[in-house]
Amino acid sequence: MKIDGTHYRSLWWNAERDVLEIIDQRWLPHDFRVIPVATMQDFADAIYEMRVRGAPLIGATAAYGMALAMREDPSDANMDAAWTFLEKTRPTAINLRWALDRCRAALRPLPQGERATAAHALAAEIADEDVEINRRIGAHGLEIIREIAAKKPAGEPVRLLTHCNAGWLATVDWGTATSPMYQAHEAGIPLHVWVDETRPRNQGALTAWELGSHGVPHTYITDNAGGHLMQHGLVDMVITGTDRTTRQGDVCNKIGTYLKALAARDNGVPFYVALPSPTIDWTVGDGVAEIPIEERNAREVTHIQGVTDEGGIGHVRVTPEGTEGGNPAFDVTPHRLVTGLITERGVCDASEEGLSGLFPEHAQAAE
Amino acid sequence: MKIDGTHYRSLWWNAERDVLEIIDQRWLPHDFRVIPVATMQDFADAIYEMRVRGAPLIGATAAYGMALAMREDPSDANMDAAWTFLEKTRPTAINLRWALDRCRAALRPLPQGERATAAHALAAEIADEDVEINRRIGAHGLEIIREIAAKKPAGEPVRLLTHCNAGWLATVDWGTATSPMYQAHEAGIPLHVWVDETRPRNQGALTAWELGSHGVPHTYITDNAGGHLMQHGLVDMVITGTDRTTRQGDVCNKIGTYLKALAARDNGVPFYVALPSPTIDWTVGDGVAEIPIEERNAREVTHIQGVTDEGGIGHVRVTPEGTEGGNPAFDVTPHRLVTGLITERGVCDASEEGLSGLFPEHAQAAE
Repeated sequence: MKIDGTHYRSLWWNAERDVLEIIDQRWLPHDFRVIPVATMQDFADAIYEMRVRGAPLIGATAAYGMALAMREDPSDANMDAAWTFLEKTRPTAINLRWALDRCRAALRPLPQGERATAAHALAAEIADEDVEINRRIGAHGLEIIREIAAKKPAGEPVRLLTHCNAGWLATVDWGTATSPMYQAHEAGIPLHVWVDETRPRNQGALTAWELGSHGVPHTYITDNAGGHLMQHGLVDMVITGTDRTTRQGDVCNKIGTYLKALAARDNGVPFYVALPSPTIDWTVGDGVAEIPIEERNAREVTHIQGVTDEGGIGHVRVTPEGTEGGNPAFDVTPHRLVTGLITERGVCDASEEGLSGLFPEHAQAAE
Repeated sequence: MKIDGTHYRSLWWNAERDVLEIIDQRWLPHDFRVIPVATMQDFADAIYEMRVRGAPLIGATAAYGMALAMREDPSDANMDAAWTFLEKTRPTAINLRWALDRCRAALRPLPQGERATAAHALAAEIADEDVEINRRIGAHGLEIIREIAAKKPAGEPVRLLTHCNAGWLATVDWGTATSPMYQAHEAGIPLHVWVDETRPRNQGALTAWELGSHGVPHTYITDNAGGHLMQHGLVDMVITGTDRTTRQGDVCNKIGTYLKALAARDNGVPFYVALPSPTIDWTVGDGVAEIPIEERNAREVTHIQGVTDEGGIGHVRVTPEGTEGGNPAFDVTPHRLVTGLITERGVCDASEEGLSGLFPEHAQAAE
């Protein structure tokens, strides 16, 4: 999306310099830095150190890493070595392995002399596919926003609330939850977005940066504020992303999403979740019972990063020394609280019937 | 309550030094400093600069301020001047005015020669009354905790969750929501307290400091985490304080309380609110519709205070430069979500019938 009027993806091939370039996300939202990713070690560092983040973006980055490996040495041995080298950078990211497997399966049958070109084309294809999936999610979500706007007095903004960063920075472009926002904004529908700060890691600051850079009006709020805003009719729709969606439509997303879904239900506010179909886990039914929740380092809760009074990036400790922190990273919103799922194939009920109606091929395979 | 084994109130008369002493709360939870409050300007600064905070504690502090004024000059003119001087320090704090009015009404009829002694005795009485009210709230709350403990396997802790700091630091001693915790701890009931950090001002860090200093086991969590913990059976009871309770039992408390009440209801967890009866506003029925919510400075949301890497107290800005923040400071939890109100006279339903049953004299006056 746009940064001060110029369109960016989160990664792109710089043909002139013959190198992949990425936005180094470690410094966002405080500093916008573009860096080249030129060696295999650069690729591993980019993923491991979270210069790129978000499952779709990690997958696309890894595909470009495989393309570089094929340029350096297109042998089977080097293909396998690159697979292993890149895969271990973030072993739990599903899209990373998926992208590497897809590359290896496509390249292995080819003569070695064709592999470098084919690998590069495949990486570009994987990136473009991600953009297209998210563009479609946005188009379907746009229709929901359009319907809400039609019921409001002309010129009054549609007020959306979002949690975490399901934005273009976590994908190649558009984002998931943000894609309908960007498309509504470009369609001229007046919008205002309440951005949950999303403790402990404050990914809301990334969302605020994205929206601000693209020109979408928004207000940054504490995670505590959303219920009050909904009680007073100040939220027309909640829209979030998801890390994993079960076949019955339960949504595992950033910690705190469930509380917003409860408030939406209590106040009659529609609660939508935007997701590319690869995040559907057809093997899981009851998300609350079956999905293990990652407990992350307590330091994320007790210490906060930001720009210091001196202008550098630093930390403050909020708690008394030695206070024990708890840090569950995700929660599960039961499908009964979800108004609808916005996928690249359209919007469906958060239910097994809804999802299998849109994705019959997966539903059958899971049975 | 105790700090490393020594019992403290949040303010006390130091007879040896002939001066009031307070804990200077501006430096908590990072630094424990006791300071004397020796001049009228000291009193005004203590209240205005939030060296003391919490409605009951402000009231008691103001009463000691009036006692100092009577020692300096027990004339009617000085009494009125002291009333005005102290009242303007935090004009919206209900207990401040209440304490000053009470002092003036009691002192005015007395000969000037008796006023200094009487004023000092009255200030001590106001402080002692607050302690007694909170002790009683704790005794009633203790019974609820005892019942929960009786249903659990022996030795398994009762897991409480609290929001904000309704602790002894906001009162003279015991606190409101924390009083049942301290009494259960002293009765030997094993406890574990989930402490919401309570963005934006992180009063949870004060609660963590209190509980840690007194020896009550606890874990500091983000405000986002409570719903997930309740879904997984890790919370036996929620207990919060309140800034204002309507006659029908709606509870206006720190922003985010409502979200915890929703999660408690969704998971069958009892949700209790501890309150001294002066916080009941008999003139208000529907809290959501009638109570105006203070919108505070957005800097509280975008900037966070804590201990820097260098060891001093500083701030970091979390958001991009120029991001607009929203900062509603309180929300209202409708009485339908409240299991019970714990007052100094006992526990009642969060309803007009419940409250007027315990406080018939007020209920009649409001009609």
